[in-house]
Amino acid sequence: MTPACVIDRAKLRVNAERLKTLCSQRGIQLRPHVKTLKSVQAAQLYAPPGSAITVSTLAEARYFAAAGYRDILYAVGVTPNKLPAINNLLGAGVALTVIVDSEAGAEHLIAFAQQFSSPLRVAIEIDVDDHRAGIRAQDPELIAVARKIDLQPGLQFYGVMAHAGASYGCFDISSRSAMAVQEARQTAEAARLLGEQGIPCELVSVGSTPTALVDIERPGITELRAGVYATFDCVMAGLGVCNYNDIAMSVLTSVIGHQVDKGWVLIDAGWMALSRDQGTGSHALDCGYGLVCDAKGRLLEGWYVAQTNQEHGIIAHRDGISPPSELFKYGTTLRILPVHACATGAQFEQYHVTDDNDCVSTVWPRVNGW
Amino acid sequence: MTPACVIDRAKLRVNAERLKTLCSQRGIQLRPHVKTLKSVQAAQLYAPPGSAITVSTLAEARYFAAAGYRDILYAVGVTPNKLPAINNLLGAGVALTVIVDSEAGAEHLIAFAQQFSSPLRVAIEIDVDDHRAGIRAQDPELIAVARKIDLQPGLQFYGVMAHAGASYGCFDISSRSAMAVQEARQTAEAARLLGEQGIPCELVSVGSTPTALVDIERPGITELRAGVYATFDCVMAGLGVCNYNDIAMSVLTSVIGHQVDKGWVLIDAGWMALSRDQGTGSHALDCGYGLVCDAKGRLLEGWYVAQTNQEHGIIAHRDGISPPSELFKYGTTLRILPVHACATGAQFEQYHVTDDNDCVSTVWPRVNGW
Repeated sequence: MTPACVIDRAKLRVNAERLKTLCSQRGIQLRPHVKTLKSVQAAQLYAPPGSAITVSTLAEARYFAAAGYRDILYAVGVTPNKLPAINNLLGAGVALTVIVDSEAGAEHLIAFAQQFSSPLRVAIEIDVDDHRAGIRAQDPELIAVARKIDLQPGLQFYGVMAHAGASYGCFDISSRSAMAVQEARQTAEAARLLGEQGIPCELVSVGSTPTALVDIERPGITELRAGVYATFDCVMAGLGVCNYNDIAMSVLTSVIGHQVDKGWVLIDAGWMALSRDQGTGSHALDCGYGLVCDAKGRLLEGWYVAQTNQEHGIIAHRDGISPPSELFKYGTTLRILPVHACATGAQFEQYHVTDDNDCVSTVWPRVNGW
Repeated sequence: MTPACVIDRAKLRVNAERLKTLCSQRGIQLRPHVKTLKSVQAAQLYAPPGSAITVSTLAEARYFAAAGYRDILYAVGVTPNKLPAINNLLGAGVALTVIVDSEAGAEHLIAFAQQFSSPLRVAIEIDVDDHRAGIRAQDPELIAVARKIDLQPGLQFYGVMAHAGASYGCFDISSRSAMAVQEARQTAEAARLLGEQGIPCELVSVGSTPTALVDIERPGITELRAGVYATFDCVMAGLGVCNYNDIAMSVLTSVIGHQVDKGWVLIDAGWMALSRDQGTGSHALDCGYGLVCDAKGRLLEGWYVAQTNQEHGIIAHRDGISPPSELFKYGTTLRILPVHACATGAQFEQYHVTDDNDCVSTVWPRVNGW
């Protein structure tokens, strides 16, 4: 039944291998971010049990912990109201790492520290690109925060991490390379400054999909993190990080009607299925709410989802061409390549997994919520 | 724990009563659209069991049918792959109405009709505003489609319905009134033309929240439909359909950090909690990803969620004011009014319901998926 979220297992495997190979050639640990698919079954292909992983919610941490994962980095600034739930994870034997980027954040952890059933690993987020959260490597607050954590029983100062989100604005390999160098250098510099103060960093972690896929040496960096590299999406293709044909996720949909005079094909995938993400709006190719493929996943050149309502999508052609009736007759099944796989995946409770023959071979559940 | 979706029960009740009163004074049936909250518990306040309801997915139809609802309009053009699931609902005793807007759609229903365990009600969608789907009242296809359905055993031609989605572009009462008149007149005209051909319409249904709340006579119309009127949101407030203080939904969030030099407050509600909907982007007041309130739900004038990542929101002030530290210190709880309640609600699996004292009194589950 449509709409449904389809994962192409072969493409997922190839994408996963690409970054894995790159990391193993450079001798650096990969800590995949599981926030895109949030599925233990999917993670078999890029973060099998035993892997260190990154999560974006405690719901992911609990779900992956229950499947045997132990080394988990929760990569969103922690809040006081989450500390009891974090303590439950420590009690279940998870080596959980949380992040802070302020003295106020550290003080809340310290106030709770004696209640932790085992020492909580704490890393400091470094701001390497002016993009979002974090402390600059040169900011004296870095040393002050680290020292507070380091001195507190119940907390284990674990290191530093950074995410160069600004890499989503890098449209060529030279700007991505420069961003990857900047991300690694500034994070390693933070670790070096802390080391000088007698506060060594076991974890020196960087990553975003566009920077992680840049093949450079990263002196002083202990691990790379990335998430959407396993599925890719139109945002990543628009940046040149992958080809559209590499995208391992699509939304299966049916044609439900037409408005011939407007050149519209209506489908049963609206924003509820595709998400409201329009992350290619600033790209050379604006994919709207997704690019249109036939039922086999072959791109139909120029066709994209131009508008969405809750359960309706409107397909149009970039050049205003009238939809050929043989491509889009009522009831025809199509696939839509997601603009942003993390957002599209989040609209579903499960994935339909296809193998080379395009038949659904299995269903993978995912975890949602917090 | 944050983020969480909060429903103010008192506001929900007042909003629900507003349209209910208007309909009862005009002597017209209200068929609430349950797609905003998708919760049987929430529906007690605006569509208690026994009510005729509108749904946007078959998952909603199954969920409400299991709670005893019988008269259900599925208001998205039906696809061939959903007919077996529709037949299951008929078999369970649901008086389900589906909609079509083309001869091709009607032909697929006809091809399946003999398999239905009881006659399936079919309505035709009328295009009243050039907005999305539907057949124009004057289009000869209207009669052709209706006649095909009317002649087919296993199908019951049930009438016409329209949704004036263009009302979301009406920023004052006079344009909304004009749109409400247009929606009602053209739909009634379609019913009249069908009646002339000996194909009477039992259902002549119109609605969208902005038009349904216009208090006019609607000759020939048998029922009104609306959904987001029960919670409202920033889009509706921006149109002038409600006040910001009427909005019954908010997302509880915590401050996780600051970037003082940029005037940013970081919170743990990103697009995963708020949705990517930016439906007020074309309004006089662009609310970004939501307006910021204190923990009691009182608006903090000028503060809005300017940017979102998956689990991070960035609060800024419309005039670039620096965030006062007493309002936004680390760990502070805030509430965000949703831009689009249907999209924000969809990001959650349950609601935390508060009563007048602002304490959570209960949790309401919701249904997701298709």
